[in-house]
Amino acid sequence: MKTSPLAPAQFPTLPVINGVRFATCAAGVRYQGRTDVMLAALDAGTTVAGVFTRSATRSAAVRDCEDKITGTGTGPAAILVNSGNSNAFTGRAGDDSVAAICAGVADALSVDPARVFTASTGVIGERLPHDRITGVLGDLVDALSPDGAEDGARAIMTTDTFAKGASAEIMIDGQPVRISGIAKGSGMIAPDMATMLVYIFTDAALSQNAAQGLLSGLTDRTFNCITVDGDTSTSDTLLLAATGASGVPCDNSSEFADALHQVMLDLSHQVVRDGEGATKFVTINVTGADTDQDAHRVGMAIANSPLVKTAIAGEDPNWGRVVMAVGKSGAKADRDTLTIRFGDVLVAEHGWVAQGYREEDGAAVMKQPEITIHVDLGVGQAHSTIWTCDLTHAYIEINADYRS
Amino acid sequence: MKTSPLAPAQFPTLPVINGVRFATCAAGVRYQGRTDVMLAALDAGTTVAGVFTRSATRSAAVRDCEDKITGTGTGPAAILVNSGNSNAFTGRAGDDSVAAICAGVADALSVDPARVFTASTGVIGERLPHDRITGVLGDLVDALSPDGAEDGARAIMTTDTFAKGASAEIMIDGQPVRISGIAKGSGMIAPDMATMLVYIFTDAALSQNAAQGLLSGLTDRTFNCITVDGDTSTSDTLLLAATGASGVPCDNSSEFADALHQVMLDLSHQVVRDGEGATKFVTINVTGADTDQDAHRVGMAIANSPLVKTAIAGEDPNWGRVVMAVGKSGAKADRDTLTIRFGDVLVAEHGWVAQGYREEDGAAVMKQPEITIHVDLGVGQAHSTIWTCDLTHAYIEINADYRS
Repeated sequence: MKTSPLAPAQFPTLPVINGVRFATCAAGVRYQGRTDVMLAALDAGTTVAGVFTRSATRSAAVRDCEDKITGTGTGPAAILVNSGNSNAFTGRAGDDSVAAICAGVADALSVDPARVFTASTGVIGERLPHDRITGVLGDLVDALSPDGAEDGARAIMTTDTFAKGASAEIMIDGQPVRISGIAKGSGMIAPDMATMLVYIFTDAALSQNAAQGLLSGLTDRTFNCITVDGDTSTSDTLLLAATGASGVPCDNSSEFADALHQVMLDLSHQVVRDGEGATKFVTINVTGADTDQDAHRVGMAIANSPLVKTAIAGEDPNWGRVVMAVGKSGAKADRDTLTIRFGDVLVAEHGWVAQGYREEDGAAVMKQPEITIHVDLGVGQAHSTIWTCDLTHAYIEINADYRS
Repeated sequence: MKTSPLAPAQFPTLPVINGVRFATCAAGVRYQGRTDVMLAALDAGTTVAGVFTRSATRSAAVRDCEDKITGTGTGPAAILVNSGNSNAFTGRAGDDSVAAICAGVADALSVDPARVFTASTGVIGERLPHDRITGVLGDLVDALSPDGAEDGARAIMTTDTFAKGASAEIMIDGQPVRISGIAKGSGMIAPDMATMLVYIFTDAALSQNAAQGLLSGLTDRTFNCITVDGDTSTSDTLLLAATGASGVPCDNSSEFADALHQVMLDLSHQVVRDGEGATKFVTINVTGADTDQDAHRVGMAIANSPLVKTAIAGEDPNWGRVVMAVGKSGAKADRDTLTIRFGDVLVAEHGWVAQGYREEDGAAVMKQPEITIHVDLGVGQAHSTIWTCDLTHAYIEINADYRS
């Protein structure tokens, strides 16, 4: 696959997070000639928080993480992720695979199995050959290194066309605090808790309660506000590991919360930029809604509309389809109070096309690789922002023959 | 556009419905070289029932019809439909256009304007040049003929690749009763009340209450169970006109209800068969659901999933994506009670791929032009059937440049 035209110019330099070490390996789970397993070892004292897909058919690894995430252990911990096989809908055998991997990692790193968090991403419904993973654990442990995050980002890719990373370094009370995150995701991207696989590490000192509250709240403003195709993965997992190595308590730090928000926003946008077949990065700003839920529904109705997405792919300023999507969303709306802008161009207001709107102005906005659609419903004060991409031939090509 | 490969071999012969006359005309609303206006004149005594889109941005004509449909007038009536321009989101000017057309039709046919029902379908947001329509009303009235239904079906087409008609003739108490229906629809097809434009005529004698109850109930089992792209039109209108010319009272006739159901089912399936870019007609049978609503949600989640639809386009028996769609639907489901069949082939049960399932058996089903996906949730007794089509390159081609 060619790299997405919306990809950042390069992978960012991620700061080392004291207390975290990474290793990757080519275990041959499915892919050949590339790495497909990432191990992250977390020092004792690390807090781990998580957000997971709410899918009724979520994977064995997700269910296992859900059970463990509220644990209050403070010993060393580990994260193990494989790509190529999602181990979802694989019955009891799937549960056995998770247990075998957790036991293997616990043994290799001398950590409590209740502190081993795993994830699998790839094809659904095929047995995970977990022996290939447990067979390389010794090599992984030997290779652990503090600066392996970028290699980790590459090992967890599936149909991604570029590796995704983001970071922040801030000073709190004169002390540096660092955040470093990686993500994978390209198709089967829709919001219902965390989407995709995302791992964020920080040397901030956070209690489990604070870490979980922060992560859940920010997820609703980042990963839960993106969509590529409206399809929700069975494996979505977002983990935050706070090692505390900086010695800076951040439970009540708004600076830390802001920095974490930026890292999560950056990673979530990168997932949209790598949306399968994407050629346009689209921001949908909804304002003037009756409720927050209505604002979110309208944004998602626009973002998931195949007719809106294909119009954007065709660079057609087809604002009538935006009107259609507002109408079908189920949110409170009124023809005569609706205002639509493409970029800075006022397109429609007072129930009709705006006076002085010229098609060529709308078309000029649509030719840009990054497009903002503003919709003001004019019925209240609530607002929401959603990010998505267009729907192109390449999406069909990628997905009409994914498995062969 | 080439005719859909899923089209019926030919347009059916529709029986004449006494009390109804049709005319069509090329008014040049938008298209050149084809008819684009249909007039149906209904004799005095005709009952008219209707079901309309619930879109918050529905068109001026839809709102006008909603206001009139509960009227109890028994004088002559009329239906006027144009294609090429939907007159949706055209502000007060749109309301004025509807009023002008209704007044013109009322005058030309000497009917009460409150008994004139109009619809417009096509591009959203452009002013309807209604003078072109009122300018041909005289010609239309002169051309009225009892056997013009097929011409009517052609005049209301937009991106449709074939005209859609269906009929039934039954004997009730030794007397013949006839039903004849036409429809248009291809893209922007999703269920939220009636979808698309559908006109059904019968010589049955029906009270307004009975006609409305019958139509609404059957819509929930036909047009509200189809989807092409999950996008809901701003113009969806379904009208039933019962002239009573047969002299057969059918308010309580289950035979009539069954016949009407068949006509509506047939027309709704034809809309799916003409889904933009469709190459597969897909029936999704959901059983074992906790509630009717859950069964419907699961069927729609599968039918609207871009990943399921592209897999079907690629003839890939990718049942993992069906599992994903069940999971995201929000319906009560359990990995270990879920059973999936493609046609007669048992694919998955007990939380995993079925013992003895062979990929080539699933692939053979997927190669057929008509595919049935059975999903049993195993958690209750409710069931639902949804009809849809695949998502292909042709859908992108049609919609990435609709307006030029």
